Amino acid sequence: MASIAYLGPAGTYTETAALDFAHWLQGQVDPSSPPPVLLPQTSITQTLQAVVNSQADYGVVPVENSIEGSVTMTLDGLWRLDQLQVQAALVLPIVHCLLSQAHDLSHIEKIYSHPQALAQCQLWLDTHLPQAARIPTNSNTEAMPQVERDPTLAAIASQRAADLYGLPILASAINDYPGNCTRFWAVGLQPSRGGSHLSLAFSVPENIPGALVRPLQVLAQRHINMSRIESRPTKRSLGEYVFFVDVQADPRSGHIQAAIASLKDYTETLKVFGSYEILAPGAGESLS
Amino acid sequence: MASIAYLGPAGTYTETAALDFAHWLQGQVDPSSPPPVLLPQTSITQTLQAVVNSQADYGVVPVENSIEGSVTMTLDGLWRLDQLQVQAALVLPIVHCLLSQAHDLSHIEKIYSHPQALAQCQLWLDTHLPQAARIPTNSNTEAMPQVERDPTLAAIASQRAADLYGLPILASAINDYPGNCTRFWAVGLQPSRGGSHLSLAFSVPENIPGALVRPLQVLAQRHINMSRIESRPTKRSLGEYVFFVDVQADPRSGHIQAAIASLKDYTETLKVFGSYEILAPGAGESLS
Repeated sequence: MASIAYLGPAGTYTETAALDFAHWLQGQVDPSSPPPVLLPQTSITQTLQAVVNSQADYGVVPVENSIEGSVTMTLDGLWRLDQLQVQAALVLPIVHCLLSQAHDLSHIEKIYSHPQALAQCQLWLDTHLPQAARIPTNSNTEAMPQVERDPTLAAIASQRAADLYGLPILASAINDYPGNCTRFWAVGLQPSRGGSHLSLAFSVPENIPGALVRPLQVLAQRHINMSRIESRPTKRSLGEYVFFVDVQADPRSGHIQAAIASLKDYTETLKVFGSYEILAPGAGESLS
Repeated sequence: MASIAYLGPAGTYTETAALDFAHWLQGQVDPSSPPPVLLPQTSITQTLQAVVNSQADYGVVPVENSIEGSVTMTLDGLWRLDQLQVQAALVLPIVHCLLSQAHDLSHIEKIYSHPQALAQCQLWLDTHLPQAARIPTNSNTEAMPQVERDPTLAAIASQRAADLYGLPILASAINDYPGNCTRFWAVGLQPSRGGSHLSLAFSVPENIPGALVRPLQVLAQRHINMSRIESRPTKRSLGEYVFFVDVQADPRSGHIQAAIASLKDYTETLKVFGSYEILAPGAGESLS
């Protein structure tokens, strides 16, 4: 029976992504085998570490949100723990709901949620709940026990969190940007399964003019499309970066293997996280 | 008398950067004129907006930390509010202290600070204060009134915050990475003052293979060194980005003007934030 660590607790968007991945994984093996077991973790670092320590076979973590951008803990963790390979990507729509026992919005005095969720509903909160204090928590569901007991409190979380905790939804789809989605990665220690997307990261030699543009030219010369580049500090000194790059590439083509070989000449450290497919969302709903 | 909006309240690292900038600014005009007035703001967005609305002549905001990376609110705000020009950059060392009325560490039950400061002292807190709850706040100094009253509480903040609030420093330089620095920008509506660094941002046409690498080649072909590239989501859909680029360039050279003209052909929207100098830190200490 496979095990999947994820950024918990139950009711977070990452749990939904982990359920989707679990469903897909079961379809890859004998569908009559027991479903994978989900292991909630308290942080992204702990989730990745559980996979590296073989306490879980896979780990599901958020990588990027369409509004907030990169999840820096995930990128920094993947760079530090270099055995991890991406097994699959999942993209989920993020639909924030206001959960509370209050009779109406005017009775709410405090709103709890993860800082990203509070930020993503800022205009809605300014308009509909200007009187309520916004209190950051470590996850969208952390404050649920208090919200269940006290009708002056509210939380911003998913529809699934409302179901799990039996809390009424006072308002739905309160995100300021309706097209809000998050991309997740399922990582593991085995080689990546192959697919149309490839992710890698590299640092470049310091203080060489044009040091960054050379690795990017290696990709462009081979007509490999770079769909994303993100920089993260090396944490050694201000102005030194690690670059995370996603490309769209057929792994069977020789181009990508040649590009990776050539990248080694122009980078200080190069880490290839493998190639993988993006799974269709919603596959895990039947498991939840 | 010039006015400078900054991410407050008093005692934050941004206030120190604003004091340094105020000191430098006064040196640019008649030194016997009254010193610039500092206007604390509650958010980065409010700081930038105060400049755009001419409620302040300048705004000082954090751009990048050597550990945590980009300050995404600042980048997103500069892209949205397109009249702002960078007047100067400042780099400050970040030295976190533990402030509390407690007799010793064992009496501390709760630690308040901004999530970035809590993250930057994680290992130290794990080792020296494993029993204490870590409570995120909107700024390093927000919880000072409670910490002043209750000896079971502590805050992580600067030496200057300890002085301002008259709180004892129980431990100093508790950052996990000793080389921790933050880069700040002072922005205004007038044209940038010119200097050795130039910052710009652009979006690229969608779905064109190699769309991103072309603007970078424009810089490389002219031997202009790109010291930084950062991507931020456009917030339209997942996978669409705005790129922020810093280059080192002599603004008197024709190369940089030619590069900017050429960049217009390869970008969808191009915003040039101007060229500026990096000011020496500590210049504002005499003002504080």
